[in-house]
Amino acid sequence: MTRKSKWIYITSLTLFTLFATNAMAQDLKQPTLDDLIPGGETYRRIENKWYQWYGDFACLELGIDQVNGTRVDQKTKKEFPVITLDEANKLLAEKELGKIHSFYRALFLNDLATLKGAKALKEDKYPTLMLVNTSKNRVLIDWKQKTIVWNQPCPEKAENQDWNEISRHLAYTVDNNLYVCTASGDIQQITNEPDGIVCGQSVHRNEFGITKGTFWSPKGDLLAFYRMDESMVAQYPLVDITARIGKVDYIRYPMAGMTSHKVTVGIYNPATQKTVYLKAGDPTDRYFTNISWAPDEKNLYLVELNRDQNHAKLCRYDVATGDLQATLLEETSSKYVEPQHPIVFLPWDSSKFIYQSQKDGFNHLYLYDVNGKFIKQLTSGKWLVQDIVGFNRTEHEVIISSTEVSPLQSNIYGVDLRTGKRHLIGEKNATHSGIQLSASGKYLIDRYASPKDPRTIAVCSTAGRADKDFTLFQAKDPYEGFLMPTFEVGTIKAADGTTDLYYRLTKPANFDPNKKYPVIIYVYGGPHAQMINNGWQNGARGWDIYMANKGYILFTLDNRGSENRGLEFENVTFRHLGIEECKDQVKGVDFLKSLPYIDANRIGVHGWSFGGHMTVALMLRHPEIFKVGVAGGPVIDWKYYEVMYGERYMDTPQTNPEGYKECDLKNLAGNLKGHLLIIHDDHDDTCVPQHSLSFLKACIDARTYPDFFTYPTHKHNVLGRDRVHLHEKITRYFEDYLK
Amino acid sequence: MTRKSKWIYITSLTLFTLFATNAMAQDLKQPTLDDLIPGGETYRRIENKWYQWYGDFACLELGIDQVNGTRVDQKTKKEFPVITLDEANKLLAEKELGKIHSFYRALFLNDLATLKGAKALKEDKYPTLMLVNTSKNRVLIDWKQKTIVWNQPCPEKAENQDWNEISRHLAYTVDNNLYVCTASGDIQQITNEPDGIVCGQSVHRNEFGITKGTFWSPKGDLLAFYRMDESMVAQYPLVDITARIGKVDYIRYPMAGMTSHKVTVGIYNPATQKTVYLKAGDPTDRYFTNISWAPDEKNLYLVELNRDQNHAKLCRYDVATGDLQATLLEETSSKYVEPQHPIVFLPWDSSKFIYQSQKDGFNHLYLYDVNGKFIKQLTSGKWLVQDIVGFNRTEHEVIISSTEVSPLQSNIYGVDLRTGKRHLIGEKNATHSGIQLSASGKYLIDRYASPKDPRTIAVCSTAGRADKDFTLFQAKDPYEGFLMPTFEVGTIKAADGTTDLYYRLTKPANFDPNKKYPVIIYVYGGPHAQMINNGWQNGARGWDIYMANKGYILFTLDNRGSENRGLEFENVTFRHLGIEECKDQVKGVDFLKSLPYIDANRIGVHGWSFGGHMTVALMLRHPEIFKVGVAGGPVIDWKYYEVMYGERYMDTPQTNPEGYKECDLKNLAGNLKGHLLIIHDDHDDTCVPQHSLSFLKACIDARTYPDFFTYPTHKHNVLGRDRVHLHEKITRYFEDYLK
Repeated sequence: MTRKSKWIYITSLTLFTLFATNAMAQDLKQPTLDDLIPGGETYRRIENKWYQWYGDFACLELGIDQVNGTRVDQKTKKEFPVITLDEANKLLAEKELGKIHSFYRALFLNDLATLKGAKALKEDKYPTLMLVNTSKNRVLIDWKQKTIVWNQPCPEKAENQDWNEISRHLAYTVDNNLYVCTASGDIQQITNEPDGIVCGQSVHRNEFGITKGTFWSPKGDLLAFYRMDESMVAQYPLVDITARIGKVDYIRYPMAGMTSHKVTVGIYNPATQKTVYLKAGDPTDRYFTNISWAPDEKNLYLVELNRDQNHAKLCRYDVATGDLQATLLEETSSKYVEPQHPIVFLPWDSSKFIYQSQKDGFNHLYLYDVNGKFIKQLTSGKWLVQDIVGFNRTEHEVIISSTEVSPLQSNIYGVDLRTGKRHLIGEKNATHSGIQLSASGKYLIDRYASPKDPRTIAVCSTAGRADKDFTLFQAKDPYEGFLMPTFEVGTIKAADGTTDLYYRLTKPANFDPNKKYPVIIYVYGGPHAQMINNGWQNGARGWDIYMANKGYILFTLDNRGSENRGLEFENVTFRHLGIEECKDQVKGVDFLKSLPYIDANRIGVHGWSFGGHMTVALMLRHPEIFKVGVAGGPVIDWKYYEVMYGERYMDTPQTNPEGYKECDLKNLAGNLKGHLLIIHDDHDDTCVPQHSLSFLKACIDARTYPDFFTYPTHKHNVLGRDRVHLHEKITRYFEDYLK
Repeated sequence: MTRKSKWIYITSLTLFTLFATNAMAQDLKQPTLDDLIPGGETYRRIENKWYQWYGDFACLELGIDQVNGTRVDQKTKKEFPVITLDEANKLLAEKELGKIHSFYRALFLNDLATLKGAKALKEDKYPTLMLVNTSKNRVLIDWKQKTIVWNQPCPEKAENQDWNEISRHLAYTVDNNLYVCTASGDIQQITNEPDGIVCGQSVHRNEFGITKGTFWSPKGDLLAFYRMDESMVAQYPLVDITARIGKVDYIRYPMAGMTSHKVTVGIYNPATQKTVYLKAGDPTDRYFTNISWAPDEKNLYLVELNRDQNHAKLCRYDVATGDLQATLLEETSSKYVEPQHPIVFLPWDSSKFIYQSQKDGFNHLYLYDVNGKFIKQLTSGKWLVQDIVGFNRTEHEVIISSTEVSPLQSNIYGVDLRTGKRHLIGEKNATHSGIQLSASGKYLIDRYASPKDPRTIAVCSTAGRADKDFTLFQAKDPYEGFLMPTFEVGTIKAADGTTDLYYRLTKPANFDPNKKYPVIIYVYGGPHAQMINNGWQNGARGWDIYMANKGYILFTLDNRGSENRGLEFENVTFRHLGIEECKDQVKGVDFLKSLPYIDANRIGVHGWSFGGHMTVALMLRHPEIFKVGVAGGPVIDWKYYEVMYGERYMDTPQTNPEGYKECDLKNLAGNLKGHLLIIHDDHDDTCVPQHSLSFLKACIDARTYPDFFTYPTHKHNVLGRDRVHLHEKITRYFEDYLK
């Protein structure tokens, strides 16, 4: 091809492309915020289906009107009916047990079979039980026999329900106390504590991997539970303006450096109706986390962490007496230790467990015996194990999710416990989540997404034999026929000059490189979160799409301190949260300024929570860069944030006064030059309104001019229908001042 | 003059005028918000001086370093020294009684002499006593003899101090209880009530003319006081975000239709240390107001009003027993009765008193005897008596302030009680306030202002003999040398087609009739206030001036419902506050649109409190007119406002559901089209934040988009230094959206 013809070719191509894009763009619908934002009236949710396992034999699809099975057989994928809503409700009606409206919340029982060694059970011996909840009863239906085999009344006002499949006991809370309803329907009140002492609920503000407050022993004979005395914790007042006359909803909120709550762990035996409390000593300024049961139910393991969060101990307690039997392991750090994963026993060898630790810089698996003897490190490398999904009991493999393929992905691996060898399970070029292992661990239901694939649900052999794998469900592009921007992911160097940081650039569909675009940086920037991934649309949010369609370029950078990059990447922020993070974001701005199509005079920033902090911090530390910011629920002064999260990264105001001062944005209030809208909701019980209100006062004192808005009755995020209003509000602010 | 020469003349004049204006404007300083807003660092307060009477003989000017007298003699105006700060502090130091820093808070005693019949006292017999307060002592100094004649220790934490000049007893409160410190320094605790019962303080939220809670008998032997049980009143939570962790400051706030407080009146005798409570019956849902003492101290008079506020009774009680002796008068109304003025006894005839009533449509004076027998109406006409200033005891005249000259003015009149004839005292073309009568009422110190006169202080003969009058002090124009707009006052017809309404139009200094100006309507519009008067700059506010200088025209209209125009003008708003008021404001807009230099597409509105309500109401009821509004501390829903004020005009939500619904701006939230900024402070204990927050919620529900701001720690108004910030904030909003 001559040079000339090549030139003509390129020109025609360009013209054609432009023409095609325009023509296409004209045919495409502009998505509205209601289309794009969760809670919107026309929100285009990614299609989804709900499955559960029937042993290793079939995947059951839980629908509204029926449950259908699909046999695990790539060739035939044979489908079979399981039960219909009419059938189920007819059975329920016969015994006057109430009614169900769909199967979405049904539970197909596998635990008992698994405990007995599922692989030994033939299908004709395998239990065919399904648990459903009517408003009045918890009912076990044999879906094969079409009979009701058991039922239990649903206690009124029961919250935090935790049902054990083997004992069929139900643990639950009413207000601040804990109850058990036994398999035979007896109600047993376990605690009778006054207001200020909470039993059977999540403690330590859901930090350290804690998500609940009850822990049944494997066979459901004993119930471990948290008891939290927070009567000594100062109460923060949130005002409910929907009452006839405004009233206070108090929350007990331990602020950094202030008196914190005290947690103990009890073990309740429904047979004896006795509770034994673990004799862990003075609970003052200590955290009790990562509870796990010994397979024989004789011991309870947990991690005890000091308030300074730099010394963790894995302890074993005698369940019968509450005595401490042994401290198996200890971990210390000059910064912090963050135990997030309970130990997991090997299903085929109850004398060994897997312990997770970041001690080599990345979260990896370590094998120990019950006496705390180190056996070996199971995984290692400059990537991290995200979670233990389960085990392939046949092959003696642990199934994990990890970042080994890419820090932007979660992939599933089987790890051979004997050899340490790993093999990838499922699609490599995608990010996986919501994995469900079959009874023996031979298969898994895999859910994954990639930039162009919103959701695939597949069955995979955990042996990594792709010839066994098949697709159960493929979601359509929810925005087919809609105008969509393009997403680009790349890396730049962090402010330290060496670390790679990932960014995402969202460009309007009809992007013209000769134009100058305003840019909005959407930022989070805090620990335990990552904004950019190799999932659907690279993790871009509906609002990013909306703004790109309005002619903005959206940019997001996962700075140092964010998730999935290892301990050192994260803890560079220790004792001065926000400082290094802002430096990295400025590197992001430098990169943007290097792009010819970015208008450096029109740079905005938006973020929520830690991202709200980052937004305000960037506006104040770099008023020469940022013209407009919208900060939601921002942390302003870490001394108003809670003890568990706040002190991990910042220590206390008493021990780190310089750090608290440096990071207190009130001290920078006088720097505000651009337009800054702060949104803080009046029922924010995560980051209390005092943050933003005290910042407003600091600005008023300094004679600077932020804007402010609040969503009454909303908590840390504006959710539901009002989330559309929120994003229209944010949009208008940028349209008013950045366009 | 030929036509040509006339043309030339006009042209040259115009050119000259333009040139002159420009030249002048260039020389003039632009006032800043700090210059114009009270609380500003350079706020240009109108110059002032403080005077008190010495009998009928001289006016004493209270300064920082000295007190000087000026003899009441128009010809000589002879000045004489009274006392210096050094002299006073030397006397105080000798007795170790502390120190004073100025004479601003000194009190020159006249009451005792007045009681004895001041006119009979020659100057050489007249007391020459001055009361001063050091931080530790209340001290009487004989300023002529330069001796200390008496002193009393100042009790710690004493608030609401009420000192009687004759008995020299001091009544005061500490927290919620009432005390007396006798002339001899004995501390007597009168009440010992728990939290929720308040004694000796103003009650009924300062409505019905109530401003305090203690009332000494004429000779100071007995103390009448209010006791308010508000323990049954719901508490509204205001959150203090300046505490280490946000805490609640509760206020007991009876909302319309809800349970209200209960008030009783006690009479305490320091000699016997006994309290007698008036036997007024069940205090539930009743108001006790307009307390006045019989001259012989044997009876107490007060007005009792039902909760519906349409039936008032003037009652006389026996002080010794607390028994009701007689109900002297009753007033009823189909709308409301609003007793605001205690009866006043004639100084020369203790069997007669003057009663004020609006029963003929305007507040006028009526003479009665102590048995409630009507003697005669003293004043009448389509104007109103604003207050009784006092009496000319020599001429048997009552001195009043009234609107007889103009509804825009307060003028002083002497009314002959025998003939009813009135004569004007002092300058006619000015509005008068802060009048101080001399001991016998022969003279008064008059303070007045007019559009071009910021403040004059003069001595006037109450006999109306202008040849006796002379000027004590003339304040300079505080904005001399500054660029100022022009103020025009006129009338338009109200929405009823007949009533005249006054408006004020503020035009930029360099006004050009060929330009189109944006206009901002500053509105209050509620009862008991009038925005336009014949005082300094016609009552225009500093911010009006600031905005006019920025090129806006400012417009204010006193709609029906506002003050000084009589009962019918006011109570046309009964049971639907805001409706007629808005109609009148729209007539104001019609007038503005008739002016060729007004840009009808750029009309904004701003107001606070009732004016905040009006601002929001106008934005919602007339989105086609108003593009931008800024509402401060608005009433949104009258059911969130307090009982006393709210129910007077609106009845209760139970008895007037249609009215409450019609006036609840939440119901109109969906109408919002323009830009509306609502400012509501977090410690607003007059109009609680629930108003604005519930409106935001209504707008979010209706998907409309108001803006919001709050001044933490501020109450119903942003006062002090932050008031400048507030007005800069308001200014920016109009500059962003209306310019």
